[in-house]
Amino acid sequence: MKHHPIKHFTSVKDVPDIREWVNIARSFKANPMQFADAGKHKTIALIFLNPSLRTRLSTQKAAMNLGMQAMVMNSDKEGWALEYTDGNIMNGSTVEHIKDAAGALGKFADIIGVRCFPSLTDKEKDDSEFVLNKFIEYSGVPVVSLESSTLHPLQSFADLITIDENWKKTDRPKVVLTWAPHVKALPQAVPNSFAEWMCKADVDFTITHPEGLELNEKFTSGATINTNQIEALEGADFIYVKNWSSYQEYGKPYLDGSNWFLGDQQMNVCPGAKIMHCLPVRRNVELSDALLDGPGTLVMQQAENRTYAAQTVLWKMLQAHV
Amino acid sequence: MKHHPIKHFTSVKDVPDIREWVNIARSFKANPMQFADAGKHKTIALIFLNPSLRTRLSTQKAAMNLGMQAMVMNSDKEGWALEYTDGNIMNGSTVEHIKDAAGALGKFADIIGVRCFPSLTDKEKDDSEFVLNKFIEYSGVPVVSLESSTLHPLQSFADLITIDENWKKTDRPKVVLTWAPHVKALPQAVPNSFAEWMCKADVDFTITHPEGLELNEKFTSGATINTNQIEALEGADFIYVKNWSSYQEYGKPYLDGSNWFLGDQQMNVCPGAKIMHCLPVRRNVELSDALLDGPGTLVMQQAENRTYAAQTVLWKMLQAHV
Amino acid sequence: MKHHPIKHFTSVKDVPDIREWVNIARSFKANPMQFADAGKHKTIALIFLNPSLRTRLSTQKAAMNLGMQAMVMNSDKEGWALEYTDGNIMNGSTVEHIKDAAGALGKFADIIGVRCFPSLTDKEKDDSEFVLNKFIEYSGVPVVSLESSTLHPLQSFADLITIDENWKKTDRPKVVLTWAPHVKALPQAVPNSFAEWMCKADVDFTITHPEGLELNEKFTSGATINTNQIEALEGADFIYVKNWSSYQEYGKPYLDGSNWFLGDQQMNVCPGAKIMHCLPVRRNVELSDALLDGPGTLVMQQAENRTYAAQTVLWKMLQAHV
Repeated sequence: MKHHPIKHFTSVKDVPDIREWVNIARSFKANPMQFADAGKHKTIALIFLNPSLRTRLSTQKAAMNLGMQAMVMNSDKEGWALEYTDGNIMNGSTVEHIKDAAGALGKFADIIGVRCFPSLTDKEKDDSEFVLNKFIEYSGVPVVSLESSTLHPLQSFADLITIDENWKKTDRPKVVLTWAPHVKALPQAVPNSFAEWMCKADVDFTITHPEGLELNEKFTSGATINTNQIEALEGADFIYVKNWSSYQEYGKPYLDGSNWFLGDQQMNVCPGAKIMHCLPVRRNVELSDALLDGPGTLVMQQAENRTYAAQTVLWKMLQAHV
Repeated sequence: MKHHPIKHFTSVKDVPDIREWVNIARSFKANPMQFADAGKHKTIALIFLNPSLRTRLSTQKAAMNLGMQAMVMNSDKEGWALEYTDGNIMNGSTVEHIKDAAGALGKFADIIGVRCFPSLTDKEKDDSEFVLNKFIEYSGVPVVSLESSTLHPLQSFADLITIDENWKKTDRPKVVLTWAPHVKALPQAVPNSFAEWMCKADVDFTITHPEGLELNEKFTSGATINTNQIEALEGADFIYVKNWSSYQEYGKPYLDGSNWFLGDQQMNVCPGAKIMHCLPVRRNVELSDALLDGPGTLVMQQAENRTYAAQTVLWKMLQAHV
Repeated sequence: MKHHPIKHFTSVKDVPDIREWVNIARSFKANPMQFADAGKHKTIALIFLNPSLRTRLSTQKAAMNLGMQAMVMNSDKEGWALEYTDGNIMNGSTVEHIKDAAGALGKFADIIGVRCFPSLTDKEKDDSEFVLNKFIEYSGVPVVSLESSTLHPLQSFADLITIDENWKKTDRPKVVLTWAPHVKALPQAVPNSFAEWMCKADVDFTITHPEGLELNEKFTSGATINTNQIEALEGADFIYVKNWSSYQEYGKPYLDGSNWFLGDQQMNVCPGAKIMHCLPVRRNVELSDALLDGPGTLVMQQAENRTYAAQTVLWKMLQAHV
């Protein structure tokens, strides 16, 4: 394996060579314990400002596979009202400044993982990755995003690994990210991130969504965008199904999109296409049980690959002599 | 040690030879680290849909003694509204189907432990072990019950070890499970499970409880049942004290049973009997401080043996080449 | 290193030789893994009846550095209504007696850490260290205080290490503990404990606070006490900034002390003094950003030293053949 260590991991932009990284991840999947001492005596603190299942367990497992010790803090539950504004007189409800909290964390952990969802109300603040960047600024140690306001790179990396495992042909696969109905307002982090990774990958990439649900262009540059779902899906090899709320009318859920439900009508134009979803999924709201449980589903493989995505990222960080 | 590996552990029915298992557990107690690498590089996810103290810590410790890594999720607190109904349109409050959650868990853990208390309102669903069986069905990995709707086999195994340690005579001890008063409705899992194990053990086993508090016969077949507490306790060597709510009038607490309080009157017919309780115990409601803290108490020994019961179960699972 | 093992750690009184302990801690800081197997196969249970960031992570890391396994229970969140009164008829809201809970914990852990804040309403009970002592009484294993009703010795030990690292002269440094404004009632544990350690250390120690905010004399014996802040700070080498509520009018916050805010006026009488705070800190309420982030700040070094304080304590406990 080549050595291009990284410091932080918050976006595909931190990855010097995605092809090399996919190869490393697949090598870890084939032999998870090949560097079982790479992180010996190192600790990673996993800070969850929002709930997590897959990200928590896969990152914990990835750390274990490298011999690292993981310390989990569910800070949404364990009470930690952080102040983010510099210079504030802290006589209100916040009990600790991020400067001090992140600074202290950096004294106890060699790497910090942070999950920090967007507000979906303050677009500018969310776009600036306010919380994540404060952890980077003040902790003094490498930071790995466990899903931030605008991106979820560990998920997207696992998604790319999964596409790679399922594509044996020599021409580029057609990958379509399609918006799906939901019952509430979801962040844009997963679709933004998937777009960002697909635009750098060796695939033919299309995004389809109702008008008005355009993602931030900064993440979709290079993608084909088509608001006609059937046209977009035609000949698709991989379909990534995901809901998101509006970026233009920031955080507004689009609740009239039931005709975007992925079912037989859509699959008729891309028979045999593989079905992807990051989970959790609202079954029979976003797409049908039949597709999620059918022969084309890749959702469990995506989940499994979360471990090897995280293991690759942590291993790359450890190469930087954390 | 002989090798009869098991897959799941949800009942005494999963145990091929309880005598052999007790011997293994006692051997682990004498030498906890004898197989300190048996679970090296293996992970166990402990999923608590309900609170836990002893079960969590004893199973974590058992896993450590075998070199396994334990990942704990307190899912009652950490927010995880699961959907259990197949085919449902998930447009309500549940955010993830058990199919996807358990499936993903099985990708990150080699063994899954699940605690899932009964509803005490839907008898049929509780009796079917609805939640536990969904984890078994969808996770694809071995599942160990950390107390389910109807059974608590890790507790009962620890109870049997404790009886074995405290019985030096050659004839069979008389073991009596007696109902005890309480202030709220408790599950039947502990008494069901204790009955199931005692009916297979080399003991003379009696159950006593107020009329109307009969346990599900499927677990008590082979036991002597006597609703006269004093008669039942006569000559007892071991008294297992436990409250449970009604199985017939499902989940109804029996609040008029204060005369079932275990005190001097009862002990007069079985002087020197050993006192057992799974804990937590409502002191001076179920039985007296004098008995719980007296020379006959085994409650702390039961707690201690939880570790070796769990260690034996996990070791048996690891033999199956998890 | 000399071997003066200890059993419990709840106060500076448990430390036979603070100079030796500081040396050990600094040796661990220089070489954290020098006894990486000292706690092999040992477990520590960390019981938090109140929230924690630094104490939790630093103690977890200290345990890891010694090869121990840490099991964390956030019992404030994870539901554990304990009964502390002996002989009570437990027919109310408490579900388990401390006797049984601590007893069981002692079966699963070789060392128990407990965080138990004061009520700030029942002075006598808090002063008696009611909760901490119950854990000591019933668990049967060594107990380390993770901050109790009246003391926070792991913090004070880290503070002493920090002073030692920052004092190169041969004469004794002047250390001043100054009360600081806050918006709510805080415990006296940190100032009590700091006073107790400083009175045993080789320093010139002064405490300053508004009249009526005298700490319990049992912890301040040997200190100079001066209610004129400017006089007290004159020539200080180290300033420890901390709010506390009244001990006399037990638990009452003193909200009129804004002139005790540590700023330029105060620093004029001790230019170059080092600034200490245990964190979390209410910035610009207790003292200014300029001081917390300036060249004299030691707060991050104090946080970092928490690990080596805890590691020294655990190592000393392990020497006692836990």
